[in-house]
Amino acid sequence: MSQDYKRFSCGCIDVHTHVVPAEFPKYLGRHVGARWPSTAEASPCHRHVMLEGKVYRTVSHQAWDLQVRLADMERTRVERQVLSPMPELLSYWLEPEDGAAMCRFLNETIAGMVQSAPASFAGLGAVPLQDVDAAIRELEHAVRELGLSGVEIGTNVNGASIGDARFRPFFQACTELGAAVFVHPLRPAGLDRVVGPPIYEQTVAFPGEVGLAAASMITGGTLAAVAGLRIAFSHGGGALQVLIPRMQQAWELLPAVKDALAEAPRESVRRMFYDDLLYDATAIEALVRLAGPTQVMVGTDYPFAIMDQAPANRVDSLRLEPDVLNGLRRGNALRWLGET
Amino acid sequence: MSQDYKRFSCGCIDVHTHVVPAEFPKYLGRHVGARWPSTAEASPCHRHVMLEGKVYRTVSHQAWDLQVRLADMERTRVERQVLSPMPELLSYWLEPEDGAAMCRFLNETIAGMVQSAPASFAGLGAVPLQDVDAAIRELEHAVRELGLSGVEIGTNVNGASIGDARFRPFFQACTELGAAVFVHPLRPAGLDRVVGPPIYEQTVAFPGEVGLAAASMITGGTLAAVAGLRIAFSHGGGALQVLIPRMQQAWELLPAVKDALAEAPRESVRRMFYDDLLYDATAIEALVRLAGPTQVMVGTDYPFAIMDQAPANRVDSLRLEPDVLNGLRRGNALRWLGET
Repeated sequence: MSQDYKRFSCGCIDVHTHVVPAEFPKYLGRHVGARWPSTAEASPCHRHVMLEGKVYRTVSHQAWDLQVRLADMERTRVERQVLSPMPELLSYWLEPEDGAAMCRFLNETIAGMVQSAPASFAGLGAVPLQDVDAAIRELEHAVRELGLSGVEIGTNVNGASIGDARFRPFFQACTELGAAVFVHPLRPAGLDRVVGPPIYEQTVAFPGEVGLAAASMITGGTLAAVAGLRIAFSHGGGALQVLIPRMQQAWELLPAVKDALAEAPRESVRRMFYDDLLYDATAIEALVRLAGPTQVMVGTDYPFAIMDQAPANRVDSLRLEPDVLNGLRRGNALRWLGET
Repeated sequence: MSQDYKRFSCGCIDVHTHVVPAEFPKYLGRHVGARWPSTAEASPCHRHVMLEGKVYRTVSHQAWDLQVRLADMERTRVERQVLSPMPELLSYWLEPEDGAAMCRFLNETIAGMVQSAPASFAGLGAVPLQDVDAAIRELEHAVRELGLSGVEIGTNVNGASIGDARFRPFFQACTELGAAVFVHPLRPAGLDRVVGPPIYEQTVAFPGEVGLAAASMITGGTLAAVAGLRIAFSHGGGALQVLIPRMQQAWELLPAVKDALAEAPRESVRRMFYDDLLYDATAIEALVRLAGPTQVMVGTDYPFAIMDQAPANRVDSLRLEPDVLNGLRRGNALRWLGET
């Protein structure tokens, strides 16, 4: 392993950080009007991500510049970042061949970042889940050829929650390849119920969407069917911590629910991983109690505006046993990544 | 006040119980195919609620028979029930004149139940929010003429969250009339993201929907604009306890959010009431911490299958101060109902 970069032995592993490449290749596909991203300079340290001729988001050089990231990591006591694409880049709405090309570009970009500082970074790729067979092929390439630790996927693929049976072969392949899966909200449900300016989309709609995706892995039967799947949900699983006791109540009282589920929801929730991006000590502690001391990891949403800015301090402040805190800082992430 | 029925001085007030009339009047409107309910006998103690020729739900005599309810209340140490319509009966999808007729029937039915045992029941009516002016007229009748304590409303009206500006005059009227408002999920967002049999609709989709509705009262500005509104959210506010820390983070870090909101989300959440229907001591305790000791009340979903069956025992089990528990049992509900 490269020792070019300092390791912070008391630091934590941040499993929720995003990458935006500084530049994208030109669109070389054959579909007129494809939603293919490009970037344009906004200021010396910022670039616009352009989609369909409009600014989708303006991102800082933290999104692609490893030197800037490493300085931020030292300042915030993050020993290692797990890199994943900005979710909008997952591009499930592109034609499958275009989606595959975008994923290949993202995977090579992230793999290159990891290879330049492997002690400080791990990488999650992207797969074109709008075509499950193609997604499995890209997953194999990303893990076997590029050395990525796994993939980031959306909570839904063009409206179909990830617990839908059509995605089960993909999760089976993840298990066979030992790939970690990180689930991030994308095009969330309930946007039409959010009142106020667009800024609230991510603030208000993301937690419910993550909860629905995690619940779908239980109610759709995929979690029970795919033994050994290492799947992690961003944003602390969102509303899942509120859903599970209600699902458990239904499981205990309604025969139709008990018959349909392979196990109690309070057992299922402990088979999945979660980052701790809940912005509240009480909520993180409740998640650790619900999911178990081995299932929660540090996640910040670096480098986006709503990111948790002091993740190590937040862990330090939790009212949990020292060994639970250490698991939260590093051990749980290593297990999820398949490194222990 | 009638003293026909025993009061349980150590009991609690259950703010979340539903009524289904044993029979509905015939449809007398002029709209062919209106989704007007009827009932049909299913067994000596059960009736089918029929909608569009199909069984919508089969309900037990607990739904309309006060003697059965009173026996259940004695057994579960519930001193008083707040009665509200089964949410599907709110009928926002009917033409306004039909909706108004249905609400008037429900309001008269519930008022009659309360009048027959006023020490044991309080009543919440229904209003045709598909026509805000008509809803205000029905609200006035329900409160002034029928003596109801307030109204139950859906989380959304035909897809528009209750925080939408169009409903603000209605909430203003609630404040002027001193009416309590109880918000219940209805036609929840994210149904298309739920995987598995229909039984999961209420189990999985309700909490996110309640969270979105409560958030809309904050982001839409209605909560700040309508001083003194006594609004309560069912299902413990659902995902709201996960949303608020995230909204607070956005408020602190994003100027656009700070500019758009009248106050910090952590302040707003303490202006609303919630039942405790979260099926989990940790989640209820977290809600009390977040919303404040004066804002949470007992709620069970009586008499439906997923109901909390031992509400008083649940309160007894919480790790909270004795005066906080007493507020949860009775005091907070009395304040929300406008009786203290």
